[in-house]
Amino acid sequence: MQNLLLPLHHIKTDNRASLVTNKRIINIRRIIGSRKLDGFLITDIKNIRYLTGFTGSSGFLIITKNNNLFFTDFRYKEQAEAEVTGWEITIEKGRRTKLIAGVAKKLAIKKLGFEQSITFEFYDLLRAKLPAVPSPQKNLVENLRKIKDEEEIGSIKKAVERAEEAFLAVKPKIRPGIKERDIALRIEDQLKKRGCKRPAFDIITASGKNSSMPHARPAEKKIEKGDFVIIDWGGEADGYYSDMTRTLLMNGKGLSDKIRIYETVNNARKKALSSAKEGIKTEDIDAAARDVIKKAGYGEFFGHGTGHGVGLDVHEHPRVSWTGSERVRNGMVFTIEPGIYIPKLGGVRIEDMILVKNGKAELLTGLNRDLEIIN
Amino acid sequence: MQNLLLPLHHIKTDNRASLVTNKRIINIRRIIGSRKLDGFLITDIKNIRYLTGFTGSSGFLIITKNNNLFFTDFRYKEQAEAEVTGWEITIEKGRRTKLIAGVAKKLAIKKLGFEQSITFEFYDLLRAKLPAVPSPQKNLVENLRKIKDEEEIGSIKKAVERAEEAFLAVKPKIRPGIKERDIALRIEDQLKKRGCKRPAFDIITASGKNSSMPHARPAEKKIEKGDFVIIDWGGEADGYYSDMTRTLLMNGKGLSDKIRIYETVNNARKKALSSAKEGIKTEDIDAAARDVIKKAGYGEFFGHGTGHGVGLDVHEHPRVSWTGSERVRNGMVFTIEPGIYIPKLGGVRIEDMILVKNGKAELLTGLNRDLEIIN
Repeated sequence: MQNLLLPLHHIKTDNRASLVTNKRIINIRRIIGSRKLDGFLITDIKNIRYLTGFTGSSGFLIITKNNNLFFTDFRYKEQAEAEVTGWEITIEKGRRTKLIAGVAKKLAIKKLGFEQSITFEFYDLLRAKLPAVPSPQKNLVENLRKIKDEEEIGSIKKAVERAEEAFLAVKPKIRPGIKERDIALRIEDQLKKRGCKRPAFDIITASGKNSSMPHARPAEKKIEKGDFVIIDWGGEADGYYSDMTRTLLMNGKGLSDKIRIYETVNNARKKALSSAKEGIKTEDIDAAARDVIKKAGYGEFFGHGTGHGVGLDVHEHPRVSWTGSERVRNGMVFTIEPGIYIPKLGGVRIEDMILVKNGKAELLTGLNRDLEIIN
Repeated sequence: MQNLLLPLHHIKTDNRASLVTNKRIINIRRIIGSRKLDGFLITDIKNIRYLTGFTGSSGFLIITKNNNLFFTDFRYKEQAEAEVTGWEITIEKGRRTKLIAGVAKKLAIKKLGFEQSITFEFYDLLRAKLPAVPSPQKNLVENLRKIKDEEEIGSIKKAVERAEEAFLAVKPKIRPGIKERDIALRIEDQLKKRGCKRPAFDIITASGKNSSMPHARPAEKKIEKGDFVIIDWGGEADGYYSDMTRTLLMNGKGLSDKIRIYETVNNARKKALSSAKEGIKTEDIDAAARDVIKKAGYGEFFGHGTGHGVGLDVHEHPRVSWTGSERVRNGMVFTIEPGIYIPKLGGVRIEDMILVKNGKAELLTGLNRDLEIIN
């Protein structure tokens, strides 16, 4: 088999009827037009899923004024035929950059937009093959994805529900003596039983000193008396994720500092939540949480941002941190997750997901957030 | 907290004693010198693990003639201190590109090499901040990683052993009536029981028509009589992966075509295996397998390459396909995995891992490869 650009092999002609109703593609095409692009190359696999429904792990799209072109490789031929309608499907052969250059030539695309998430290597090959330097587009699809529609919110709620049920099924086991790793395995098992194709991410269960590392991995360590136990986990439904964290305190001696830390994080969470509404800057939500923690004297122990968008990716736009200055809009779904992590002593994080609706924050996650001391 | 470049906060002074013995870093430094780079920026997380032992998910390195600089963010502070020796550890604050530019200025780095796997976005920001255009380096660390040392081979063998034991524990259940998804869940469970932190990838169990999609995901579909069942799974040990595939045939009517397909794939596998030795081009191993399949009339149904390297990544160099023209060397570990996938009828893949040692291929994976018809 030679590494040549083979003739485009059209498996299916496009189905324009379904396009008319596809708001997402109409939106993309509008932006492409306003940016004076002749075509837009989409390589991010979640963006591809968002626009086509394709759930495979490899492919790319080219959208022009009149064409919706979908490309994937041989492995996904049948899957693409089953999942993707309204797109002209081509099975890739040979080098991707040559194939793209061939399409650009055939459709007379001069200014081709591309996603900034492509690797430098791919960019460099692409630039060498195309007649004109391609044009980087920052977050073109991602900006649309920030605003969730009803269907997406339904999937996210389902992912939250599965995650919460999984946690509640395991919660009675979270006591001194159980290993961190066992908690994670049990939650993962419960998530899968409830239909999650995979956990949203490697579940974090961190106790005692480990809890002062915000992203510690579950260990053979057994939970001990007096430990904070951070559990950070998420579910999945229809490709959408949920993400939440709860911290439990095991009963023991000398808990007063730990109780004060927990209450500080919980107050920071409440402040951030009450600040979250349409029109506010994301950095101001971060500041609301951070100020509470700073005033309590723990400022240096809250090293991460206050939140992040959740959807087809567990971490997506908007970023809710001191660097984020975008305005909150209706339809956004993001986390609020302040934390305090004190080396050797332990850490606390409380993480919820909210949806901004009718101007206000609606909590998507439930489950108790007040301090629970486990005997 | 402002988004400014804060002063570098040195947590630990470097430990030069351990460097002398670190062949990997010496090799990198030699290549950097030969390419006339003043420094090399390493961002690929597996390359970071390879060079430092760090198992976290975020960080970067800068290597110069005299400095080994390790950067990670606040979340991994304690983990880095525990895992990384011989490197000067800095906790990142603010934008990464500003931090890198600050280091470049401080150490008078003019020509800074970077890995081609960085995103265009990161490259673009970096270029804007640095005094000179940074220099892309193709597979600098990856080329070293292709040749495994004794320790790495030990870890890979452990990953294989865990995977094989997991499969054998589940194999008696692989019969008509069980759901594809249940097989995958059981294997995953067995892998974790044997110490794998995670499966090497989402386990593939594809039966009947699904088996004609090489990367189908496990479904609710029950295995039926006459089905091919492809199981593609891998284990993990010390961060190293294994990857193997077996295909079982369920007894049923009219199996003669299926038996012929299986035997063809198995013959292709044998030909590829016997061709694999020091000095041969990887494309010739691919051709050895492909010729058998072509001659049997199934050429169009073998759409993927014959193999790939396995190590810290499940898919790494070398590529064993019609595009790969590199020479096989001692110490390489890669798969041999021919397949035939016929829409509606089903598919077969047999995948083994080999190590090239003393010029010859040594099979790392065991387990029966001859046709098994399950009643």
